[in-house]
Amino acid sequence: MTDSGALAKIADAVEAGFDRQVAFLAQLVRFPSLRGNEAPLQDWFSREMAARGYAVDRYTLADVPLSSHPKAAPMVDADPASSVQVVAAHRAPNPTGRSLILQGHIDVVPEGPAEMWTHPPYAAVIRDGWMYGRGAHDMKAGVACMVFAMDAIRAAGFAPAADVYIQTVTEEESTGNGALSTLIRGYRADACLIPEPSGHTLTRSHTGTIWFRLRVRGVPVHVAVAQSGTNAIMSAFHLIQALQAHVARLNEAAKGDAWYGGIPDPLKFNPGIIRGGDWASSTPAWCEVDCRIGHLPGTDPKEAMRAVERVVAEAAKSDLFLANNPPEVIWTGFQTDGFVQEPGTDAERVLAEAHQAVHGAPMEERRSTAVNDTRYYGIDYGMPALCYGPKGEGAHAFDERTSIADLKLCTRTIARFIAEWCGLRPA
Amino acid sequence: MTDSGALAKIADAVEAGFDRQVAFLAQLVRFPSLRGNEAPLQDWFSREMAARGYAVDRYTLADVPLSSHPKAAPMVDADPASSVQVVAAHRAPNPTGRSLILQGHIDVVPEGPAEMWTHPPYAAVIRDGWMYGRGAHDMKAGVACMVFAMDAIRAAGFAPAADVYIQTVTEEESTGNGALSTLIRGYRADACLIPEPSGHTLTRSHTGTIWFRLRVRGVPVHVAVAQSGTNAIMSAFHLIQALQAHVARLNEAAKGDAWYGGIPDPLKFNPGIIRGGDWASSTPAWCEVDCRIGHLPGTDPKEAMRAVERVVAEAAKSDLFLANNPPEVIWTGFQTDGFVQEPGTDAERVLAEAHQAVHGAPMEERRSTAVNDTRYYGIDYGMPALCYGPKGEGAHAFDERTSIADLKLCTRTIARFIAEWCGLRPA
Repeated sequence: MTDSGALAKIADAVEAGFDRQVAFLAQLVRFPSLRGNEAPLQDWFSREMAARGYAVDRYTLADVPLSSHPKAAPMVDADPASSVQVVAAHRAPNPTGRSLILQGHIDVVPEGPAEMWTHPPYAAVIRDGWMYGRGAHDMKAGVACMVFAMDAIRAAGFAPAADVYIQTVTEEESTGNGALSTLIRGYRADACLIPEPSGHTLTRSHTGTIWFRLRVRGVPVHVAVAQSGTNAIMSAFHLIQALQAHVARLNEAAKGDAWYGGIPDPLKFNPGIIRGGDWASSTPAWCEVDCRIGHLPGTDPKEAMRAVERVVAEAAKSDLFLANNPPEVIWTGFQTDGFVQEPGTDAERVLAEAHQAVHGAPMEERRSTAVNDTRYYGIDYGMPALCYGPKGEGAHAFDERTSIADLKLCTRTIARFIAEWCGLRPA
Repeated sequence: MTDSGALAKIADAVEAGFDRQVAFLAQLVRFPSLRGNEAPLQDWFSREMAARGYAVDRYTLADVPLSSHPKAAPMVDADPASSVQVVAAHRAPNPTGRSLILQGHIDVVPEGPAEMWTHPPYAAVIRDGWMYGRGAHDMKAGVACMVFAMDAIRAAGFAPAADVYIQTVTEEESTGNGALSTLIRGYRADACLIPEPSGHTLTRSHTGTIWFRLRVRGVPVHVAVAQSGTNAIMSAFHLIQALQAHVARLNEAAKGDAWYGGIPDPLKFNPGIIRGGDWASSTPAWCEVDCRIGHLPGTDPKEAMRAVERVVAEAAKSDLFLANNPPEVIWTGFQTDGFVQEPGTDAERVLAEAHQAVHGAPMEERRSTAVNDTRYYGIDYGMPALCYGPKGEGAHAFDERTSIADLKLCTRTIARFIAEWCGLRPA
């Protein structure tokens, strides 16, 4: 137990540094760090970390032997060589406490039509206690929390008594290869905390996700004789309907699941991008649909992929054209495990105590229907992996925003967790 | 009746010029004269016509007051100023015969995925009596016929005894504004022949066509909470299904039509281009579908457009999201009348006699389920408008091709028609 005087000093330091923290978060949000364009943010971030005295390891996904790892996912439409990762290390001399990985992703998803945003998506406008912007909530707020929690400990005159790695990664929204690369590169610790915006709940579990592209090729003809051709767009829709029926069956079966039985339709199928055809008066010759489908923890992703292939092949049989021109299923990203962080770890106990101390109420838990990066740490590298972070709204949506008040509470909680988990020394 | 010696000389001249004609057609096919990119072909064509001694009027759609004409159609995604038209005039001194417009469009529709073509789409490969290529059939073969029919008359030592306008136009595949512009610019004649590839049949009638874009805007959310968002792609499919039901009702009603009652499902609805969404794991915020729908001759295009709007508005009511975020219908091109060239014109009689003489069999007729440019000449400017041309396959499809043997027969037929309709004089 860290003495209460030290903890009070650290809480004061969070308060004292909070204006700088909000400005730092605004800087993060102003980077349009869409997939393939994260490098400028990472360059800036690595300079910020170096200026704080951390040892900075900046590398790209082309620098690690990703492809030989069984959990690496295909990167379609993205270049590993431009996908920059940053690890800032606090190395404690003769460490006595428990080591920690603090990890956040800085890739954001596309903002969609600009006119549907109240404020420009990369302007970081603050209004009525919220900061608006793509990524403000998912998850640049969490990144700001972990950085300024560490800053507060130092500002209070202390340093963690164990190694702490502050990691900002890419590919969380598409493959998970950023997180995986830090592990392949060798970074390990006694626990991992990922401050995804969980609204101060512990993410007890997350479902798995598969990405794929349906590719339909048809024989176009003039619409004047359309009955003798086929319409690739409508054939793609036929496959979408079959996959909707598939996920409905999966959700029916999920009613008996230990973790997700109580959640209505925990598995989501999303046809997220569609493009097809070249001319309004030509029967479309091609259509492609980029999809995402979920599966329960415990399901082998390969098994979920085989199921998608079976559903598509079966649906193709009942479409005269597709039966002769089988549609393709192309794996375009995520092939992730679902994950359950089983209760009972000491890391969770320490986090729950920090939460209770800051919020004055017990830490609640959630069961997420979307992936986060904890799975690699928990499943593949056997460390307690806690997903817990600030509060906001509108992930992947318009007017995404994060609560400024909750940003501070979360920073205090994480700072306290670090202090208790790693122990403190005078700086 | 032109004397048979002159007609035989003209037929011989078609034969003698045929190698040049095939080479000319291959040149035409090698221009990728997609919408917006027709100008280089038109430049070359106008030089070819000038070299033959015609007076050439080359102008663009920005040079005529299109927008004030009630039958002009909106040009979305195309620039009138780069849409070049060519009229090559044979002006007969003291004309005694009947004047004639020969018109062909040189715009082609997109070729689609290259790998689905046996030969490159703009290579004009000849194999087993067919020339392959986008536009070879629809309708550059017809353009070659009309040019070389006139060439044969001159080569045989004659000239038409009346004015003949050889016109190559754009926008036939999207709006019809090219054809309309020639009429607004003032070109008139006693008859019009458009050698669209009808397989040596007279096109008795064609249906009307409307182009429109469905625009759906949704509120995207992370798929983890997809039940609280909406999927613009699926909402677009909802509208497509409603329009399919609409066209099925139209086709049911068409069973009683004087011209189309005998043709199964003469009215076609085609969702031809779709695009939507930005990210596989974000519920799509937007989707657009470019569509084409047909209507019967006699239906006012404005009435067909109001019906589309009603169907879309009605379908939106049964979709929780669309009901609150009404989809848009944007008019993107064709707003055409259907057209019936009533039997009994002298022009048709002369064409039928020429066909009989060349083919040794009566001219048959077809009722087309796609538009052609005759409507403006017939409906809006009151002249007999004949759509009759060579034989081929694969309009708007892969491996589009035209029959070389039929190209020659058609050229002979058109040359004979010109001779009989316009009369001949020694050149």
